[in-house]
Amino acid sequence: MMRIPLPDSMACTPADLAGALRWRYATKRFDAGRRIPAPIWAALEDALVQSPSSYGLQPWKFLLIEDPKLRAALRPHSWDQPQITDCSHLVVFLARTAIGPEDLDRLIQATAEARGLTAEQLEPYRSLMQKDLIDGPRSGAIDRWASNQVYIALGTFLTAAALMAVDACPIEGFSPADYDRILHLEGGPYRSCVVCAAGYRHHEDRYASLAKVRYAPESLIEIR
Amino acid sequence: MMRIPLPDSMACTPADLAGALRWRYATKRFDAGRRIPAPIWAALEDALVQSPSSYGLQPWKFLLIEDPKLRAALRPHSWDQPQITDCSHLVVFLARTAIGPEDLDRLIQATAEARGLTAEQLEPYRSLMQKDLIDGPRSGAIDRWASNQVYIALGTFLTAAALMAVDACPIEGFSPADYDRILHLEGGPYRSCVVCAAGYRHHEDRYASLAKVRYAPESLIEIR
Repeated sequence: MMRIPLPDSMACTPADLAGALRWRYATKRFDAGRRIPAPIWAALEDALVQSPSSYGLQPWKFLLIEDPKLRAALRPHSWDQPQITDCSHLVVFLARTAIGPEDLDRLIQATAEARGLTAEQLEPYRSLMQKDLIDGPRSGAIDRWASNQVYIALGTFLTAAALMAVDACPIEGFSPADYDRILHLEGGPYRSCVVCAAGYRHHEDRYASLAKVRYAPESLIEIR
Repeated sequence: MMRIPLPDSMACTPADLAGALRWRYATKRFDAGRRIPAPIWAALEDALVQSPSSYGLQPWKFLLIEDPKLRAALRPHSWDQPQITDCSHLVVFLARTAIGPEDLDRLIQATAEARGLTAEQLEPYRSLMQKDLIDGPRSGAIDRWASNQVYIALGTFLTAAALMAVDACPIEGFSPADYDRILHLEGGPYRSCVVCAAGYRHHEDRYASLAKVRYAPESLIEIR
């Protein structure tokens, strides 16, 4: 993949960004009859793939749940929320449960290929990751570290969706153990971490018209 | 705050979004002489404030480190990374260490004000949060839960920065204990969680021209 040169201008105006972030809300009721058009969904999938992560390790997978029977099976383990069955695209964000040498090998190989280098030239990079994530202090908290990375992808996805005028609902109200069982993830290298429904709001979703609640900027941002 | 009506169109095109996400990279060397213009920084601060969080609880604060002496004091506890001192805007993302009734009261009061409701009308909402975060299973993992929310804000910020053609470098390579000490957070309700430097890449940053490394979409996204 070649690098894209510096753009001459911003991808959108500050006002468009502000508008998109205010337009979005956690959609409680989706229009089950409206499907996200393929080119728009492709842009959202791309946002997941391009999402930043620590060391670029991408300790995640994204399950797109298309089978209506599977969605119906997941819904009772999601506080029975109708977004699970009614949304256009349902994504289960999976986090890697452990980081081993094979994860570093995979990234080093991909990096060598993308940049025309040898694995030997990338040894300092591999060694840095090894010392931090496998031998170092973070090795005991990989589950938490991987979760954090997945939430970067969630933030990226939610922002991208708003920019594309796609509604979304991030969902923590589900049973990871039941999801792992139903999705056959038990004993595997990934576990279900967080869920996001995407699509278009139902015109009767009363939450769409409620004022957004955010604390005053001066209480959230402090200059030191 | 009034809700913004449904936009007629997307805030940017899928191609612009894709371009911004490919243009960004973890900037290793900033141009210390270039400052993010005030209106652009305002848009990035706004992205932090508008960022989604579970229940809308916003369990975070954002410290903007402007004092050069403070930056110099933090740098040795950040693997001596030059981004800490050379970037235009340095943000330390803080996570709430615990969630108590006062957090729920604060959100309920803000919600009542924004939506013209009484606290009594919002009791079911308060009760739901109480049962989940204070009395329920998540009460034992608030530190982790709050971290996750902060990483949504980080993902939102990184995406917003790319859209505004602002460079950024998310930083996990720092000592939270030393940051907490230097920033006088010890014993308080927030702890340092993750750091992000923002500004403009130095024209000699060799990382800018390296190919981005992402696994193939078909290995990251699985349809079920």
